[in-house]
Order: sequence, then C-alpha cells, then structure tokens
Amino acid sequence: MSKSAKSKAEKIASAKRDSLLELLRTEGAKIYADLDKGQFPQFYVPSRSVSNIVYDKKLRQYILGKAAGLRSSRNMSQLRSFTQLIWLAFFANRLVHEKKSSTLRDIYYSSQAFAIDFEDQPESDNIIVDLEAVLARPREDFHIFPEERSSVFGDLTIEYTVPGYEGRRTNLSDHPDGYLIGPSLSSAELVDTSAELVIAIEKGGLFTRFVEEKVDKKFKAIIIDTAGQAPRSTRYLLKRLHDQMKLPVVILTDGDVYGEHIAMVIKSGSANAAHLRDLTVPDAKWVGVWASDIEKYKLPTIPMTESDIKRIYDLQKDPRYQEGIWKKELEIFLKIKRKAELEAFSKYGLTNITDKYLPEKLEIAKSL
Amino acid sequence: MSKSAKSKAEKIASAKRDSLLELLRTEGAKIYADLDKGQFPQFYVPSRSVSNIVYDKKLRQYILGKAAGLRSSRNMSQLRSFTQLIWLAFFANRLVHEKKSSTLRDIYYSSQAFAIDFEDQPESDNIIVDLEAVLARPREDFHIFPEERSSVFGDLTIEYTVPGYEGRRTNLSDHPDGYLIGPSLSSAELVDTSAELVIAIEKGGLFTRFVEEKVDKKFKAIIIDTAGQAPRSTRYLLKRLHDQMKLPVVILTDGDVYGEHIAMVIKSGSANAAHLRDLTVPDAKWVGVWASDIEKYKLPTIPMTESDIKRIYDLQKDPRYQEGIWKKELEIFLKIKRKAELEAFSKYGLTNITDKYLPEKLEIAKSL
Repeated sequence: MSKSAKSKAEKIASAKRDSLLELLRTEGAKIYADLDKGQFPQFYVPSRSVSNIVYDKKLRQYILGKAAGLRSSRNMSQLRSFTQLIWLAFFANRLVHEKKSSTLRDIYYSSQAFAIDFEDQPESDNIIVDLEAVLARPREDFHIFPEERSSVFGDLTIEYTVPGYEGRRTNLSDHPDGYLIGPSLSSAELVDTSAELVIAIEKGGLFTRFVEEKVDKKFKAIIIDTAGQAPRSTRYLLKRLHDQMKLPVVILTDGDVYGEHIAMVIKSGSANAAHLRDLTVPDAKWVGVWASDIEKYKLPTIPMTESDIKRIYDLQKDPRYQEGIWKKELEIFLKIKRKAELEAFSKYGLTNITDKYLPEKLEIAKSL
Repeated sequence: MSKSAKSKAEKIASAKRDSLLELLRTEGAKIYADLDKGQFPQFYVPSRSVSNIVYDKKLRQYILGKAAGLRSSRNMSQLRSFTQLIWLAFFANRLVHEKKSSTLRDIYYSSQAFAIDFEDQPESDNIIVDLEAVLARPREDFHIFPEERSSVFGDLTIEYTVPGYEGRRTNLSDHPDGYLIGPSLSSAELVDTSAELVIAIEKGGLFTRFVEEKVDKKFKAIIIDTAGQAPRSTRYLLKRLHDQMKLPVVILTDGDVYGEHIAMVIKSGSANAAHLRDLTVPDAKWVGVWASDIEKYKLPTIPMTESDIKRIYDLQKDPRYQEGIWKKELEIFLKIKRKAELEAFSKYGLTNITDKYLPEKLEIAKSL
C-alpha cells in the first residue's frame, strides 16, 4: 500500500493534473500576450457544427474537421461568449487546483457569483463543450461531472487518487451491488485484475443477475452496467480497461435500434463528443441482442413504434452502419418491425441468459 | 469476522427468510384446505382503492382500512387474477428459496414460461402489489427489486447476508463515490457506526460535494443520495438507520413543492405503499430548501410552472400538510410562485451549502 513517497498511481494522477494546468496556463498566457501587444484577446474554437464532423476510418471514431471559429473580444457579438469561455477556464483551473468536483448544473449557478450572465443551463453547458474542444480534453479532466451514474463489478483492484484516499486500494468485487462509477473511480488508477474480458450490459436488473450468477468468475469477466446509453465516465473506464489492462470488451443491449446504437457509441463515439479522444473502444464487440436473435431464440417481442422505425432509417445513413452485422441487423429490424428486451430471456428461466445465451454469444464473438 | 457457526447477521437474515416462507406456506395451505373440502379456493386481498387509504395519526403514515376484496377461483371474471396471484406466490417462494433476485420486468417475462397470460407489465406489477398487500410484506422481501438505485456514504459497517458474501463486512466510507443501495446492501445487517446523524439529500451532484467536503466527518453523518423521490430500498435503509442505529434523519431537497413532498414521503409514506410498514421515518425532519429560505438566502430562482402550482393545491388537501412548516412553506411557495434548486447555493461558492447553510439548518432542526 505504498505509504512511502508517492505511489505510481499518485504520480500518474499528478502528471495528468499538471498537464491540464499547463494547458490552461498556456491558453491564459496567450490572452496576456495579446493584451501586452495592445491587441484584442481572442480564441480559436474548433467548429462543432454537423458539417465539420467526419467519421475517421483510421481512428475508427468521429472527429472534428479543420474548421474553427474565431471568438474575439473585439467583436461585440462575440464578447459575451468570449468572456464566458475565459471565466470557465478560470473556474476549471480553480477546480483542478483545489481538487474539487462539480456538475454541469453547479457551473451554471456558480457563474452567478461572478456576474457571468448565462441565459440558462444549456448556454453554460455549451460553453463547457467549447472549452473541451479548445483544450481537446473531456470536462471530467477539469472535474465537471454529470449526475448520471453507472456501475462496475468484478476482480479489479483500483488505487484512489482523490484527496484523503491517496494510495488506498479497493477491489471492485467487494460490494456485490456494484461500484458507482463516479469522480473517485474515474480518477483512480487501475492496478490489477485477473479478468480476461469486460462485459458491458445495458440494464441494471441484469447486471445484478450477472453478479448473482457469478458471471465474473465463470467467464473471468468484469461486468459493467451502462445504465442505458453509457455515460462518458463509463466509456472512459471501458477504454482504459481495454487499452491499459488489455481486456476485450463485449456489449449486451436490448434487441432494438437503440441497443444497437448504444453498442456503436461505445465502439466509435458519438457525434457530439467528436472533439474528444479516449472515449471509444474501436475493438469492442456488440454480441446482441441482435435482430436475428429474436427469431433464433423465439423471444417475446414488442412492436416497434414509428420513432423506432424512423431511427433505423436515420442510422442507415450513418457511414458506420454500411457493413457487417451493423448493416445486416438494422435490415432485419426493419423487416420484422419488432423488438425484444434483454429480460425477454427470462421466459426460459431467470438464468437462461447467463447459462445459454451468453456463452453462445461469447463463442460467436471470437469470429466477429 | 465470525467464520465459526452462524453470525448474528446470518441468523437475522435466515429468520427473516424463514418467516416469509412460513407466510407463503400458510397462504398455500389454505388453498389446499379449500380443495380438500371440495370448495373453490379463494383469497382476500386488501383493497387499495383511494377510499380505503387513510392517514393514521398514531402511526403517522398512510394505512389501508379494513376493506378487502374476495378473489375467488369460482368467479370466472376473477379466475385470471386469482391464477396470476397464485403463480406469483409460487415464483416468489422459489426466488426466496434459491436466494435469487429479480426485477418487476423480469417477473413479467418469467411468467411467459408458465403460460401466465399477463397483458402487459402494468398488469404484472399490479399483481405484485396485490401479493405485497396479502402478505403485508414489501416485494423486496421476496427478492423483487426495482432498477432504480440510490447510494450511501459514511462510517457504517455492514455485514452481507447474500450468497458468497455471508459474514463479510464492509465499511461504507471505503468508496468515495458512494455505495449503491441494491439487493445486497438492502439485505445486509447494520453492524456499527460512529455517526450521530443521517442526511438524506435529493441530488447526486451534491451528494458527491458532501463527500468531498467531508460532511460525514464534520457532522458525524451518514449521507444518502435519494436520487430524487427516494426508492423504497432507500426508505427502508433510512428506517433501519433510525430505528436500529438510533440516528436522527434530516432531509435536504430542492426548494419546490416536489422537494417538500420527497421529504414527506420519507417521513410518512406514499398512498400507493399504504399496505406496507417499515418504509417510513415519522421523526425525520425536512430542513430545506424551504420556500422561506429562497428569500432569506436570496437564491437564484426559476418560475413555477402551471403543474407546480396545481401540485401545491393538491397537497394542500392532504391531511399531512395542515400544520407547521408543511403548511406554512406551501403557502409561501404559492405566494412567491418561484422555486430554487439545491445547487443555487453555488452562487455563493461551491462550499457555501456545506459551510453555511447546512450547519444553520441543522441548528434549526433541533427545534422542529
């Protein structure tokens, strides 16, 4: 438990913090330099408009193109958002220095102490994304977290780096309800695991079932509840488990177009986080529930709504859905116009999904 | 860590399980007895209609009156729900025997293996509540959990009773993102705490802030994130912390009519759980955000919507809102027609809520 000097985890954490602070310092210095030269300070903010978002086949994720907008304190119509961005950078700097975390909503209210006049929370949220784009760092790095929480369970030892817990280690199989993926877990170092696989599953109820059925032991797996669309902190953890711990990632979702897209976002990101890296696992595999599984396993189904069907047509235009299972399964969904939930396997008994479906799909995953 | 024989926690857990199984056995035996006598088996299900729900001033919670409906296998129109209820009792018995947990949705799908023809999930949910009413036990006792999750943090040692973890203890201050209140925590025994207070707070973001600001140490508190309206598992934990560990409970909510009602439900229950005990803390205190705090602390506000105002008129008819702060604050909300969120205190700095507001309100709480 390395009480002596700084542990490796602490060193990594403080290096990460230092590099962010350096980035903020550099941006701040540019402002001062402009002022010294008698020029109006300005920023270049990468454009996040749809026309500047492209799917990069080599990186296998969405990225921003080269378009960037100038935000200048000279331009009266930009002065407001310019000031808001500077203020946010100042506030982020303070959060990181003081090792305090915050939420999107907190930032909106905190601004009022400084007479920063955000119209509403969407306006302040938008400036936060601007700062992410300028720094090419996710807001979590400057300690701004969403409220949404997912969870993780399995044999993974982490070492905390948050104040008061530096150097302390926990094994994520100690609490069988699962561990919340909050600021502390997100900033912890991944120390050790005996797992050989990560299983991300969309539903909390089935996450609990997986723990009860000892999926972690039977399949040497770390299990992650994405709680629907995976929050960024969860995608970041999945990325680290894949890259640092060399673990393959498989994804289990409901058998519908939203489930298919949940898997795709873990694999290759979302358009609205195209300005960020470190949130995608291009090698992740979606193992189901596939549209073809609905017939194969004779699952109870629910008819699709109009909006489900519209969503399929939308995804069919996305470059990522042009081949392989991604294309094929969308076509089958469109043909059968029905969907099935993960819980549908309970029709065959509560443990059918872990006893039968999961091992069969893990076998198939090897060939994907 | 009592490896020898059964620990106290294991004894309590198995006594609880045995009493539920005995209850199910007794109900089942009645069916057999009816059959032996050549009679059509039948059940009495307490009526949960509005006319049978009364607020009990002595118990300080909502309870069901004496009205009960006969559900008989003789009556063709009741045969369907009669059969569903029997099946559910059978399935609950199996869950408890096998120590497996399930969700409301799982039950709906599981029924299909038995050709139990639930129209949709609301129909199966309703039968689950019927079984709760017949047994006067919450569905969690027969291992049916909702998906919703809240969390807890603080110096509280628990001892698990779920399979594979019997006798293992965890201290709930070990993971600074908080511990999920799932099936394992709900069924664990509360062993030891140095805390002198429980603070239930409505927002996950502020829960994290409270942990960061060491509210647990500064105020000798266990902190609970209710994640909005507190799920039943959370209310059950609050009840046990109050009754078994003798801890006072205070509640912090957003400054609006829904916040006030979140506090009231923790204190005296909800009408739709009127058939249950063990989910209320009549001595719990709502310390804010009060409508009067909005002016007092000059908090940033949001205008109320029509539905907020309608909700106030609704609550004014509820017997529990006829006196004290409950009445007074509703009146002020109605007068100012504005609301404020807990995060609004961030206007005065991120730690204002823990440094200033919380200690002031805890002082006031003593006189409530």
